[in-house]
Amino acid sequence: MASPAYTDAIMLFGDSLTQAWSDGSLSQRMAEYYLRRCDIVSRGFGGYNSDWAIPVFEQVFATKEAREKGYAQNVKLITIWLGANDATLPGEPQCVPLDRYKSNLVKLVQLIRDPSSAYHSPDTKIVLINAPPIIEDAWVEARIEKWKSFGSTGPKPEQNRDKAVTKAYAEAAIEVAKEQKVEIVDVWTAIVETAGGEGAEQLAPYFYDGLHLTSEGYAVLFKALSSLIITKYPKLNPETMPMRMPHWADVDLKNPQEAFDKVQNGRLAGEL
Amino acid sequence: MASPAYTDAIMLFGDSLTQAWSDGSLSQRMAEYYLRRCDIVSRGFGGYNSDWAIPVFEQVFATKEAREKGYAQNVKLITIWLGANDATLPGEPQCVPLDRYKSNLVKLVQLIRDPSSAYHSPDTKIVLINAPPIIEDAWVEARIEKWKSFGSTGPKPEQNRDKAVTKAYAEAAIEVAKEQKVEIVDVWTAIVETAGGEGAEQLAPYFYDGLHLTSEGYAVLFKALSSLIITKYPKLNPETMPMRMPHWADVDLKNPQEAFDKVQNGRLAGEL
Repeated sequence: MASPAYTDAIMLFGDSLTQAWSDGSLSQRMAEYYLRRCDIVSRGFGGYNSDWAIPVFEQVFATKEAREKGYAQNVKLITIWLGANDATLPGEPQCVPLDRYKSNLVKLVQLIRDPSSAYHSPDTKIVLINAPPIIEDAWVEARIEKWKSFGSTGPKPEQNRDKAVTKAYAEAAIEVAKEQKVEIVDVWTAIVETAGGEGAEQLAPYFYDGLHLTSEGYAVLFKALSSLIITKYPKLNPETMPMRMPHWADVDLKNPQEAFDKVQNGRLAGEL
Repeated sequence: MASPAYTDAIMLFGDSLTQAWSDGSLSQRMAEYYLRRCDIVSRGFGGYNSDWAIPVFEQVFATKEAREKGYAQNVKLITIWLGANDATLPGEPQCVPLDRYKSNLVKLVQLIRDPSSAYHSPDTKIVLINAPPIIEDAWVEARIEKWKSFGSTGPKPEQNRDKAVTKAYAEAAIEVAKEQKVEIVDVWTAIVETAGGEGAEQLAPYFYDGLHLTSEGYAVLFKALSSLIITKYPKLNPETMPMRMPHWADVDLKNPQEAFDKVQNGRLAGEL
């Protein structure tokens, strides 16, 4: 553990939409929101689909045994945000058929929920996030621009996504959440409603390349996610979570050591 | 460990200047710079001075024993950024006399360097960062504004800092770095040179309240820190560090599992 005295974490798991640590990204917003409350562990893997997410999950999520022995942080909440790449068109390397996408999401949920799973973690709240809408023309243009800027000699990129197809994956994630009784942030709908429609011009402020979110796009997601957390999991409201180490003004100047001896968040066994 | 397969980390240790996870903060910039290379573990404690930093360090830095048993991430590099609060004027609760500030920095370095220390970590590169300049008028105005906005009935805040005093602490940190043979980012000088002087108007873009850095201020620090890392510790240049999990386009579609079985960064013993 690099993080003794920080036994709690929130893990963000997914693809490039999760991977970003840019200004205004989900990771940055969550890290600022949970400042000195708990670590934000970002485990986003650009381009990954739900097929590849399963073996990766098994490497980035601590086993039950490790956690019970106190070697692992408690993941109080995990966001699982997949689908944008699964929804590439049939024949594309990232494409995962809709039914398998759904069963993969179920598998990920069950890896955490199922008592017989090596990764069983009953205290981890699970929040799915579905695929946001896309702007088709902007996306294919961005692909072609990238291809040009790399001076690639390969074939000119063509469209590899379709908004209606992505929407089907976004809706499928909602179905999985209902079936599995886990929460979901329906970021598709949140963005479309905030944008006032699904048109390219309406969606433009929320995407920088037709697929990936701008800070404004992440703001819509963050608002929905933080509201969900406060409503459904009030113990994870950062305003009521104990701060790691006392506020400096609460340190007894005559006996400062005492303040730091009271570690509010426990210590991991592995920290010795 | 919430972060199996991420055995390496960079720890940012210090006061409020380190604590920030805002857009353009040191933490955000470092997390984006080391995207999928290693975790950025931010351990900033607003208002803390070097006296209080020592017991806190002993709680947030893993012991040698924990690390050797594989329960702890390897902290490849730590930034220690203290002094801004030590330099408050005598009589202020955060004030630490200059000599003790220096000996506290030495103690922190030795906690990592000294083979007999419980926190001995010979592979951890140590980079000190000194206190940046301040804008005295802006700082006392910000204190008064905060006091007003809280509707406080306590005495009106007065000036509790002095630029020349802070400069003495900034210079002291440079002396400690030389004596202890550790690297330092002289952010005082970097900001003054970038600003073109120490005047209030010149420094204004780099501070939002006369003490804490804007994104522009952090940009100066980040440029200096990343240059230092690349020059002095080329193995920690993120461009040459292996990416955690393969690039999606390198996944063998016929045998994807194989790609994920090769964990490039080892596994922690505690992960089981």
